[in-house]
Amino acid sequence: MSYLRKDIAEMAGYVPGFQPQEEGWIKLNTNENPYPPSPQVVAAIREELEGDGAALRQYPDAASRRLRQVAAELYGFDPSWVIAANGSDELLNNLIRACAAEGEEIGYVHPSYSYYATLAAIQGARVRTFGLTEDFRIADFPQRYDGRLFFLTSPNAPLGFAFANDYIEELASRCTGLLVVDEAYVDFADANALELVRRHENLVVTRTLSKSYALAGMRLGLAVARPEIVAALDNIRDHYHLDRLALAAGEAALRDQNWLRATVGRIRTTRERVAAELRRLGYTVIDSHTNFLFASPPDGDGRRVFEALFARRILVRHFSDPLLAHGLRISIGTDAEMNVVLAALAEIG
Amino acid sequence: MSYLRKDIAEMAGYVPGFQPQEEGWIKLNTNENPYPPSPQVVAAIREELEGDGAALRQYPDAASRRLRQVAAELYGFDPSWVIAANGSDELLNNLIRACAAEGEEIGYVHPSYSYYATLAAIQGARVRTFGLTEDFRIADFPQRYDGRLFFLTSPNAPLGFAFANDYIEELASRCTGLLVVDEAYVDFADANALELVRRHENLVVTRTLSKSYALAGMRLGLAVARPEIVAALDNIRDHYHLDRLALAAGEAALRDQNWLRATVGRIRTTRERVAAELRRLGYTVIDSHTNFLFASPPDGDGRRVFEALFARRILVRHFSDPLLAHGLRISIGTDAEMNVVLAALAEIG
Repeated sequence: MSYLRKDIAEMAGYVPGFQPQEEGWIKLNTNENPYPPSPQVVAAIREELEGDGAALRQYPDAASRRLRQVAAELYGFDPSWVIAANGSDELLNNLIRACAAEGEEIGYVHPSYSYYATLAAIQGARVRTFGLTEDFRIADFPQRYDGRLFFLTSPNAPLGFAFANDYIEELASRCTGLLVVDEAYVDFADANALELVRRHENLVVTRTLSKSYALAGMRLGLAVARPEIVAALDNIRDHYHLDRLALAAGEAALRDQNWLRATVGRIRTTRERVAAELRRLGYTVIDSHTNFLFASPPDGDGRRVFEALFARRILVRHFSDPLLAHGLRISIGTDAEMNVVLAALAEIG
Repeated sequence: MSYLRKDIAEMAGYVPGFQPQEEGWIKLNTNENPYPPSPQVVAAIREELEGDGAALRQYPDAASRRLRQVAAELYGFDPSWVIAANGSDELLNNLIRACAAEGEEIGYVHPSYSYYATLAAIQGARVRTFGLTEDFRIADFPQRYDGRLFFLTSPNAPLGFAFANDYIEELASRCTGLLVVDEAYVDFADANALELVRRHENLVVTRTLSKSYALAGMRLGLAVARPEIVAALDNIRDHYHLDRLALAAGEAALRDQNWLRATVGRIRTTRERVAAELRRLGYTVIDSHTNFLFASPPDGDGRRVFEALFARRILVRHFSDPLLAHGLRISIGTDAEMNVVLAALAEIG
């Protein structure tokens, strides 16, 4: 069809994780939070809806000023270093648009978030991937990486390990272009790279409220970067990209750090218990800094276990990629859910 | 700054209409609906939030299936011909990305929605604009227009007139690329171009829920196009672009056509009354098919009247563009608001 750019007409879309429509599944395949969001979030949305919902007839604040202010205070940066977005996916998309022209290169680690490749394809940018060493460093990363942008998912998904800050700093100084540290899961880790944004002018950190804040349904992301980069991202985003209820939800969520600490604490406790139990069952489990575990059964046949769990209406994530097919990515659910999973795995063998 | 593409680093962002933060303004500058959205919308959002808001922890339906189904039934198309979006702005953006590579041309009418130019600049596409004749046809439109895409805002903003369907069909057959009919205001008009999508494979219609459905705050847009074009737009959109509450709001809004008819009817009645009153005051008023009027004072000094209204805390839109500076774009508010405006204009003279 001649109306479309050739690359676009031929590209395959990204396929997000399966979302069963019926009830009755234990759903541990898309790293959602098993606990509801802060009650403050629900209260803030209800307040915005007050009365007859008349607030909805007016455009939202195009600049997300209050949300940025709250995020800036939380992170300890000036608001000019912070931008909000319709999920961190929007930021990843616009970072590529801002930095890589058609035919230019972006890089990322494989395995990590394969959506980077889809976003690059839309832009017509080339992609270069780097593997991992046994001790989770980047294999053959050049002394000087000349791609326009490098995405470092840290903590890594789907494996769950985190890159150390001194290693991230080393990578930043080896990158000619931007180093984007995609910290979607960082609230479940012990450290983060925010402070490095001050020290390395090419370093950007992205965050999401989908996982730790239990707001996957509200599409909220944030980035911290130099004001020049934030300004460029502001110029190229859709000018009203966040609706009024999302803005209200985001502000309330960031303000309730007690809720965050409590929920993240529970998930981390469950995660450590489940990791230990899985090891007892003979599984190889990577130490996780996220809200999921990458675990491999003794026979290294991830698909077999995935299917046996699926038959029991337990949904986890299996990747057919040869680097990942030996294992499963299991989101951390409630303790009750994880007990069912562990019992099933003991039975499946 | 070398991290950014040169074009992006140098571009100026789009500046949306001024949104006063304090109370007490009569706000008629961004074509918002003066009436609240359907009560069904508020009910649907409350239902999605039910109890502790636990639904928000899960990703929304990436494919917006229910919303597309409702829109498809309303418009009389198969759902494969319909896509939803985070405001129609997202559709305009992605239509350019899907069709125009760097350096290729897109076109639009000037004056219309200047945001097309911003979106083209982000993509690195070239822009060609066409003026209007006295009788509101496109001046010097070539027999064969070879741009990758042409945006036709119909009804036109900021002037308010609508292009006739037979003229739109003629334009479609003169375009080599896509003809995108941006029908943001069409619910306030007497006719629309939806049926033409069946007859012209290069014709796309976009809609928004911001104006007629009073949901500017929720960011909802729709497009109707051939399935091949819808598929491409699906491949390049952010995969979770619409949050759960926006999806619920959109479905409920489209289902309540009685509310739409009643509200649009009120606004049209007010519009006709205000147009007549303005003419009585000596204003030149373009017949409007929208929820605003483009009106020029007898002395052709739009800025003078804008400032006098501003001093009275009445906000309308004045464009410094020489083609538009003689007039004002005045959104249709409630009857009470418009009475205040008319009294002020009589006083201002």
